[in-house]
Amino acid sequence: MENRVYNFNPGPATLPLSVLQTIQEELLNYKGEGLSILEMSHRSKTFDKIVDDAMDAVKKVMGFGDDYTVLFLQGGATAQFAAVPLNLALPGKPALYVNTGSWSKKAIAEAKKLSIEPTVIASSEDQNFNYIPTSFEIDPNASYLHITSNNTIFGTQWQEYPKTGDVPLVADMSSDLYCRRFDPNQFALIYAGAQKNAGPAGVTIVIVRNDLLERSHDDIPTILNYKIFAEKKSLYNTPNCFGIYVVGLVMQWILDQGGIDKVEAVNRKKAELLYQTLDSTDFYRPTARPDSRSIMNVTFRLPNEDLEKQFVAEAAKNGMVGLKGHRSVGGIRASIYNAMPLEGVEALVQFMKEFERKNG
Amino acid sequence: MENRVYNFNPGPATLPLSVLQTIQEELLNYKGEGLSILEMSHRSKTFDKIVDDAMDAVKKVMGFGDDYTVLFLQGGATAQFAAVPLNLALPGKPALYVNTGSWSKKAIAEAKKLSIEPTVIASSEDQNFNYIPTSFEIDPNASYLHITSNNTIFGTQWQEYPKTGDVPLVADMSSDLYCRRFDPNQFALIYAGAQKNAGPAGVTIVIVRNDLLERSHDDIPTILNYKIFAEKKSLYNTPNCFGIYVVGLVMQWILDQGGIDKVEAVNRKKAELLYQTLDSTDFYRPTARPDSRSIMNVTFRLPNEDLEKQFVAEAAKNGMVGLKGHRSVGGIRASIYNAMPLEGVEALVQFMKEFERKNG
Repeated sequence: MENRVYNFNPGPATLPLSVLQTIQEELLNYKGEGLSILEMSHRSKTFDKIVDDAMDAVKKVMGFGDDYTVLFLQGGATAQFAAVPLNLALPGKPALYVNTGSWSKKAIAEAKKLSIEPTVIASSEDQNFNYIPTSFEIDPNASYLHITSNNTIFGTQWQEYPKTGDVPLVADMSSDLYCRRFDPNQFALIYAGAQKNAGPAGVTIVIVRNDLLERSHDDIPTILNYKIFAEKKSLYNTPNCFGIYVVGLVMQWILDQGGIDKVEAVNRKKAELLYQTLDSTDFYRPTARPDSRSIMNVTFRLPNEDLEKQFVAEAAKNGMVGLKGHRSVGGIRASIYNAMPLEGVEALVQFMKEFERKNG
Repeated sequence: MENRVYNFNPGPATLPLSVLQTIQEELLNYKGEGLSILEMSHRSKTFDKIVDDAMDAVKKVMGFGDDYTVLFLQGGATAQFAAVPLNLALPGKPALYVNTGSWSKKAIAEAKKLSIEPTVIASSEDQNFNYIPTSFEIDPNASYLHITSNNTIFGTQWQEYPKTGDVPLVADMSSDLYCRRFDPNQFALIYAGAQKNAGPAGVTIVIVRNDLLERSHDDIPTILNYKIFAEKKSLYNTPNCFGIYVVGLVMQWILDQGGIDKVEAVNRKKAELLYQTLDSTDFYRPTARPDSRSIMNVTFRLPNEDLEKQFVAEAAKNGMVGLKGHRSVGGIRASIYNAMPLEGVEALVQFMKEFERKNG
């Protein structure tokens, strides 16, 4: 295993070892072409196939149909916080947001900055974002409703997506796309920085329903214009070629695991194991409300901050890294994305029990 | 040599073999940390050092001082076409552009799209962009003057940069940054997609004089805001971590070659060899005016298009790929960036002579 650690970082995050090995093997000479994927023209037939295959797989894994277009963009969720209102907000039709944590807040702030006044229809800020709001009204005249499907910092995740009727549902799925099955047709637009379940940092996956593309005006920065990038199959300009290649490999890895249902089953098992451990003691205190718990980021506290520091340090010594909670909230966070093997979580649970025994 | 070809593609382009080998060696386990650079948190100490070192090297290679800040952004030149006017245009002070080809035109069109009316003070469109204009007036009241330092499609390159006095000089150096020495203090802002001389596609290098940062308003998309990214040392959000890492390796490679002067000397030798070959016969017809020739992209025609097709195909059979001219102009283009070894150009010249002998 090349002395690799169990990497619980929230993103960039652990990738499947077999994917890394493929990258390594192909790095100097991609499939006998005599050059690296890093050196390959984005206008070559070979790269065309890499993009096409990656786009197809992005849709295939979740079952998106022909009425959706995949875009490979740059700039992460931060770029999408601007792109969504710039492309999708219609005059006189409010842009709705649910505020479930730091990333929602950034999305809301960005719309405001760009003079597209956001309407926050629900928020869990009253309880320090430890839950997902479930009761709110959706103005049927809205331009769209934006949600953050998983909140890495607070360890919460939408368990069921809101029914929005004709209002386009837009989701920032940066940290949980491909963790579980959902009905793709609920969504008008999904975006995700790839660096959790789908690849390396530097490539953003956008899946957009084709009718939404007609909203893109000509007066927004080209780099943020969905329609232009859709028309050019994401090759309007030079994309992050390497990142797209890795996304394609990760999608193939999901299919090789048996598809999204198999990956979800393992994810649920990993999360259950951790939450059971947390719930079986008072030493560890999970922070998310049980009905809102994330199966991707499990957040919890120890009796005090000194113990938390010690926990993170000792875990690292035992080959488990990246467990420190986000600096804005403290505590512990175990990010258990798709590529974290069950054995990694078993090792963490073992360590947690041992740590409690010694320090409880 | 792993059966590698000579890669004359205009970008993404050839990279130093030693850099690729380092990436390959470190890919599964970065310096014994037990994880890949592709899996590493952008908030880790290790990555902090990678960014710091890369930023330092980006400045060191060209001699930029403390009054300049390096940004690693995403979105390529296309994003910068928007970012430059959005950040730097001041009310009542014209945004000046020199039009030297397709990329200049895109920069100009993007400013117009964003309602920052560009003033084109010179153009070489009258001669199908086969030269760089040298006589034009610069309004001393201008917000900035934007130039494209090297024109990949037309094979032209500024030989001397314009003297702009107090008007900030902004240059798109995507295809020739690091090909030769220049006085860094001439420039207020330089940007470059990394995928020619500096790394892989997906990371954009911006070098900006610090006083310019004060122009960034709060009402432009965060992802395009120079000031915000400068304040956060390019880590406002998750960057293209891998791309930055590779840029750092390429900068170190330049230093290992003996620095920019040594790299320039090899580049001039390669270009001379090619232009001499072109000038010594009527079979090949260089397209750029001699006083405007690029040392990065050498463009030429053959007696007819059939011969050009044959040339590209036969060269590829002989292990020299990427020689087809841009689809908008046709012909042949040999892109000979830093990482193209002299031997590659010698092999090409040999092939050209042989091809002429057979078909001339």
